[in-house]
Amino acid sequence: MGDQKPDQGLASPSRRTLMQTGGLLAGAAITAPLVRALAQTPMPPDPTRVPGAPSDSLGIRSPFEQPRLTPVGVVQGSSWTPHQDLHGTLTPAELHFQRHHNGIPAIDPSTYSLTLHGMVERPLTFTLAELKRFPSITRTYFLECSGNGGRAWNNPRPDMSPQVVDGLTSNTEWTGVPVSTLLRAVGAKPGGQWVLAEGGDAAVMTRSIPMDKMLRDALVVYAQNGEALRPGNGYPARLLLPGWEGNMCVKWLRRLEVLDAPVMSREETSKYTDPLPDGTSRQFSFVMDVKSVITAPAYPAVLPEKGWHAIRGIAWTGRGTVSHVDVSTDGGRTWHQATLPAGATPLSHTRFEYLWRWDGKPARLLSRAHDVTGAVQPTAEEFRKVRGKAPGYHFTSIRSWDVAADGTVTFGG
Amino acid sequence: MGDQKPDQGLASPSRRTLMQTGGLLAGAAITAPLVRALAQTPMPPDPTRVPGAPSDSLGIRSPFEQPRLTPVGVVQGSSWTPHQDLHGTLTPAELHFQRHHNGIPAIDPSTYSLTLHGMVERPLTFTLAELKRFPSITRTYFLECSGNGGRAWNNPRPDMSPQVVDGLTSNTEWTGVPVSTLLRAVGAKPGGQWVLAEGGDAAVMTRSIPMDKMLRDALVVYAQNGEALRPGNGYPARLLLPGWEGNMCVKWLRRLEVLDAPVMSREETSKYTDPLPDGTSRQFSFVMDVKSVITAPAYPAVLPEKGWHAIRGIAWTGRGTVSHVDVSTDGGRTWHQATLPAGATPLSHTRFEYLWRWDGKPARLLSRAHDVTGAVQPTAEEFRKVRGKAPGYHFTSIRSWDVAADGTVTFGG
Repeated sequence: MGDQKPDQGLASPSRRTLMQTGGLLAGAAITAPLVRALAQTPMPPDPTRVPGAPSDSLGIRSPFEQPRLTPVGVVQGSSWTPHQDLHGTLTPAELHFQRHHNGIPAIDPSTYSLTLHGMVERPLTFTLAELKRFPSITRTYFLECSGNGGRAWNNPRPDMSPQVVDGLTSNTEWTGVPVSTLLRAVGAKPGGQWVLAEGGDAAVMTRSIPMDKMLRDALVVYAQNGEALRPGNGYPARLLLPGWEGNMCVKWLRRLEVLDAPVMSREETSKYTDPLPDGTSRQFSFVMDVKSVITAPAYPAVLPEKGWHAIRGIAWTGRGTVSHVDVSTDGGRTWHQATLPAGATPLSHTRFEYLWRWDGKPARLLSRAHDVTGAVQPTAEEFRKVRGKAPGYHFTSIRSWDVAADGTVTFGG
Repeated sequence: MGDQKPDQGLASPSRRTLMQTGGLLAGAAITAPLVRALAQTPMPPDPTRVPGAPSDSLGIRSPFEQPRLTPVGVVQGSSWTPHQDLHGTLTPAELHFQRHHNGIPAIDPSTYSLTLHGMVERPLTFTLAELKRFPSITRTYFLECSGNGGRAWNNPRPDMSPQVVDGLTSNTEWTGVPVSTLLRAVGAKPGGQWVLAEGGDAAVMTRSIPMDKMLRDALVVYAQNGEALRPGNGYPARLLLPGWEGNMCVKWLRRLEVLDAPVMSREETSKYTDPLPDGTSRQFSFVMDVKSVITAPAYPAVLPEKGWHAIRGIAWTGRGTVSHVDVSTDGGRTWHQATLPAGATPLSHTRFEYLWRWDGKPARLLSRAHDVTGAVQPTAEEFRKVRGKAPGYHFTSIRSWDVAADGTVTFGG
């Protein structure tokens, strides 16, 4: 964040934005006066000659490193991770993307409960404290909205940042109870092939999930990056289906019903199905395909000079582990294998990096991720051929960034 | 946090505490009115009947899950991680412990620089932007103050929480440049066996570090858990020596000088050496030994009833990976091997868990960690025998928690 030019237009983290955020959960509004005060505090010419500030029990950010907020009014009911400002693999919980269907409910953890019923031997209702008494599992997983990238596909503009292009994916450590443990507790019956998950929000979000996924690796999570879930991410507990569509990872989870067939809810019929070129629709496209995006240099960054620059980005796949990532600096004519500075973890964001010597001429930067199943990110042309002109979800085509001779970097589609 | 009894005494996160935190970087003071407002907002009886709050670009915590701040006045110049409230393995950057020798300096990243000189072919000074152009490395490492546990050793009290007992260790993902890369850039000469690291704070913190550690795995880090370092943790860049004493991981790093011998600075002679029973002192005790602490149930938690409870904690070692952790519920007469719900990662906090059926009688809970070198956490008696009555640093003896018949849990030393 510190060495980038001030942001303009679409991706601007203006103080006005901070002040406009309202409502019950408006933490950002509170921080605005602090940010202003800090930014106006003169820095000492020699910090070794002035006693420093006392320890802060809640270590706050430098005034030079305030997070870039989601542009107001771009998409209702969502917030996007500012990938152009992040390093490594983790997303701070505070900056995890959000997508809600009827807002963030206010839930008292002492009255929260999760009921398991349907085709089970003994229906049971668990309090939050009871969920925490079960053996826990802790894993790092990416979570991506299946609509991620839709805005950039439908209406690409040069002033789109990685946050605006692909900010609906994030990567955090989750802690919770395996769904298999809960299903064993209630005694799921053999005929139960699907499980309905229902949220306690005002949308009463519902999705049907195949039993084999629930038994394989699904979790009911109550913590993220070490802390309790935040309300915007499902407090006090949500479903987490590693590698699958974000909307299925039902937040504010209040009910799991074992069934012999999917319920065909709104969110799996009129929404979250994929129209195909032949006029049919693909239903139950649960798994998120292999994908990557360059996060630096990317709009609104400006390269200050010719010479060596690190091209960095993130890659991920819902089908296991990213095997390798290619980077092109000539619009796709030649490709170079990137390094993975944090290694590769299954079902997680994988950081890639490629050192590039810029000659000062216009250049087009691309990244192309591969996964262990042999899947590879398609070009826009290949993607359009298979998925048609107006897919609703699962936008995985290769993204490009244009570097101009003056060093400005813009989104190329 | 949600299902624990309100905290009392020493570890209380009172609003007074929030309000008392002052100074340039006093983020906590700002949040107090928000916390109060949220806590007074009535929860809707049925959240599905009320539209929820809009997305928050900075996802704030539930009013029921405000982090427990470090008790004011307990130790000057430090803040402690509230382990009793955390899950999994990661510490949010905001809650990473801090220990300063003369406060947190205010540093402008555009004027920050790091100079490498001494026994080198060509001394060089790097800006922050230049550091970020080098190939990066991302790894998760614990960081522990070598004084961690000292307060509990010297003055144990039943009302000490895991935060107060062992809150000076934290675990985060770090991103930065290998020191070996920088030393290659300046051409360290063969005779250079030590490197002086100097901080840009008002203490001008200085430590001498053996060259082999610097070449093996030392990093100059500029990001933590995905974001820029926070000022309390060395913004814009600090040294990170995986598995070694926290004070050597010099924050606000401004200088690395290649030398043929240690400089014998204040922090490696009068401080950070270990007095032994025979009257001599152990110098250069760099590596943090194997250690563990139970974080739940622990003061101020109260067990609500007999039956199954999860005993959870963290274990770590500076000598590689935790191999296994034993838990005792009868004061050390019998031991049971705990599970590791997140696996074990080298030089990181490792979460352990043991399901315990409480019979409602008084019990004493202990944990004992082992690492891959065969090292095992000593009893208090064994520790005292080797290290004497008043060691200054490296307190690794087994901790105990006493469960009373009424369910209250207190620190047993």
